[in-house]
Amino acid sequence: MFEVLETDGQARRGRLQLPHGSVETPVFQPCGTYGTVKGMTPVELTRAGTQMLLGNTFHLMLRPGDQQIRDLGGLHNFMGWSGPILTDSGGFQVFSLGDLRKLDEQGVVFKSPVNGDKVQLTPESSIQVQGNLGSDVVMVLDECTAHPAAPKQAEESMLLSMRWARRCRDAFDRGREESVNPGAKLFGIVQGGMYENLRQVSLEGLLEIGFDGYAIGGLSVGESKEDMDRVLSALLPLMPGGSPRYLMGVGTPQDLVRGVALGVDMFDCVMPTRNGRNGYLFSHSGVVKIRNAKHKNSQRPIDDRCECYTCKNFTRAYLHHLDRCGEMLGAMLMTHHNLHYYHKLMAQLREAIETGTFRTLTRSLFNDWNNNDESV
Amino acid sequence: MFEVLETDGQARRGRLQLPHGSVETPVFQPCGTYGTVKGMTPVELTRAGTQMLLGNTFHLMLRPGDQQIRDLGGLHNFMGWSGPILTDSGGFQVFSLGDLRKLDEQGVVFKSPVNGDKVQLTPESSIQVQGNLGSDVVMVLDECTAHPAAPKQAEESMLLSMRWARRCRDAFDRGREESVNPGAKLFGIVQGGMYENLRQVSLEGLLEIGFDGYAIGGLSVGESKEDMDRVLSALLPLMPGGSPRYLMGVGTPQDLVRGVALGVDMFDCVMPTRNGRNGYLFSHSGVVKIRNAKHKNSQRPIDDRCECYTCKNFTRAYLHHLDRCGEMLGAMLMTHHNLHYYHKLMAQLREAIETGTFRTLTRSLFNDWNNNDESV
Repeated sequence: MFEVLETDGQARRGRLQLPHGSVETPVFQPCGTYGTVKGMTPVELTRAGTQMLLGNTFHLMLRPGDQQIRDLGGLHNFMGWSGPILTDSGGFQVFSLGDLRKLDEQGVVFKSPVNGDKVQLTPESSIQVQGNLGSDVVMVLDECTAHPAAPKQAEESMLLSMRWARRCRDAFDRGREESVNPGAKLFGIVQGGMYENLRQVSLEGLLEIGFDGYAIGGLSVGESKEDMDRVLSALLPLMPGGSPRYLMGVGTPQDLVRGVALGVDMFDCVMPTRNGRNGYLFSHSGVVKIRNAKHKNSQRPIDDRCECYTCKNFTRAYLHHLDRCGEMLGAMLMTHHNLHYYHKLMAQLREAIETGTFRTLTRSLFNDWNNNDESV
Repeated sequence: MFEVLETDGQARRGRLQLPHGSVETPVFQPCGTYGTVKGMTPVELTRAGTQMLLGNTFHLMLRPGDQQIRDLGGLHNFMGWSGPILTDSGGFQVFSLGDLRKLDEQGVVFKSPVNGDKVQLTPESSIQVQGNLGSDVVMVLDECTAHPAAPKQAEESMLLSMRWARRCRDAFDRGREESVNPGAKLFGIVQGGMYENLRQVSLEGLLEIGFDGYAIGGLSVGESKEDMDRVLSALLPLMPGGSPRYLMGVGTPQDLVRGVALGVDMFDCVMPTRNGRNGYLFSHSGVVKIRNAKHKNSQRPIDDRCECYTCKNFTRAYLHHLDRCGEMLGAMLMTHHNLHYYHKLMAQLREAIETGTFRTLTRSLFNDWNNNDESV
């Protein structure tokens, strides 16, 4: 199901085989919250370089409902996306609800932000919902450990996630035949906060249960870059070489490069899409904030090295204008650019690993970002 | 510049030669208010069948400003649209401001809804702004006659528009060389409210001045279908056969068919785009209101006879869901469908005129609309 084709240092060039196709790794997955990557048609996603995307269980179970999506043939059919889909467990969004949710051993109960109904999410129901969606990669339900957390608190949270991971594994195996996508894979999630020893315990527990892939959760939650690097540096060498490694909710282009350098294979983040809609644009020379008045008359594209539809056809002045007028087309074109930028970056990293030039490439990328950053 | 290739009854199949290309008529022009047809890239517009579009002088002179668009190479360059563009005079939007504007012989002064500045629009400044935008077809500034209007009021308004039309002609001829698009054409606008005799006087005055094309203004302002048909039926036979005839701000698919039957060559309207964004969708069997709960689980496309990207790939259930979640993609896909529907309708009408089957086609169209209307 997963094959490492080439390595360069710890960086891995791999291929992930899933029911809806194979994915070249390292890969970045855009977020398709409500069954759509905001402002992008499936054709445009493919054109921007998307191989695989993420669907949000929490959102989709509330609207339009996972049973309805099942009745309509699963999420792929529903949204017209024929490539692989990974779904999160719904847990992360539930925990973001704060006071609106109540957690116990069984699971978590929350008040629907859509209609106020009480909704329960358990390891078993999360797996069932994801089975109804028909995703290719199903994630276990975990508790996203608070940050900062004392060692005891981080440990208890990690252990709860471990018991839930076991229940998810069982529910997944029991329910496989009734799933919309019986060939789906199940990934476990390493927790343990910022404590390397807890991360190790978490990983060992998950390995004992056995999963198709291993994700790293609970990072990009407000910790310093140093903390993230420290945890990743300690954890990644312990992770099994033959399974895909997925760093959840990460991150900036710089985070992606650092993650790949340490051996991460998969990423997802709302950053390119959300920031794109808000005129915060990635380029080889750093960030371009399109709302800045200096772009009002600029005839330059966002990034003169970029080959995307937006950069080939539109000026910063035009995007500045569209953004100022609140025109949908601005969000569409800027999302397209940011996704193209992320996917192109991953393609460059993949190629560099294949040709043994990973360090040269990363030095050159950071050099460009640091020396030309337009956002400063 | 304009050639009638074929006729069938009063319906005309023509070709309009403009600096940015030739246009097959009868043609429908979508509205690109702020330098974008909302939710559509230029490539998508072409894919939906758009030949020519309309830009709004009023909006563009306020944001980003016509001088800026001129500095950036004109509206075509600015928005990345290489086909023909027609611009309105700005008058219609100014008159919609109600108490915020003041009219006299010289022109109209209004308070900018963007920043509160006092802005003046005169026949001369409207022509200059349109010259800065670089449109292919420039419209004269006219006063949109109130509706309903007493004969005296309608006559005075029409006569003011006539004096302004003269000044527009002069300003256009004087300023041609400084325009971004020196090959642009100038259209006059027939006014006169619901009074056939005033319409005739207006047309004769415009013919005396001489324009490249003749538009019919002041319809689709709340009058009955019978009033519209009566005015058009009286006016169109008087219009010169060798010049294009443009019915402004019209209309529904039924209005387009009736207009073409009477000899109209050009139309524009916000209806397909605005209604598309609001889930009001045109189909061969009438209107589909996507917000209706009955579409929640429908696996049908909007229109099973439609070949557009939306109908080929997405169900009503999915569009209903996107609309309910306020997802941009819903507006994009539904706008695409409605524009495709309008352009396809015009293509069918053009073909029917060529083959002498116009009456057969219109009977069949109305039969489908009336007998299957899903909106009732």
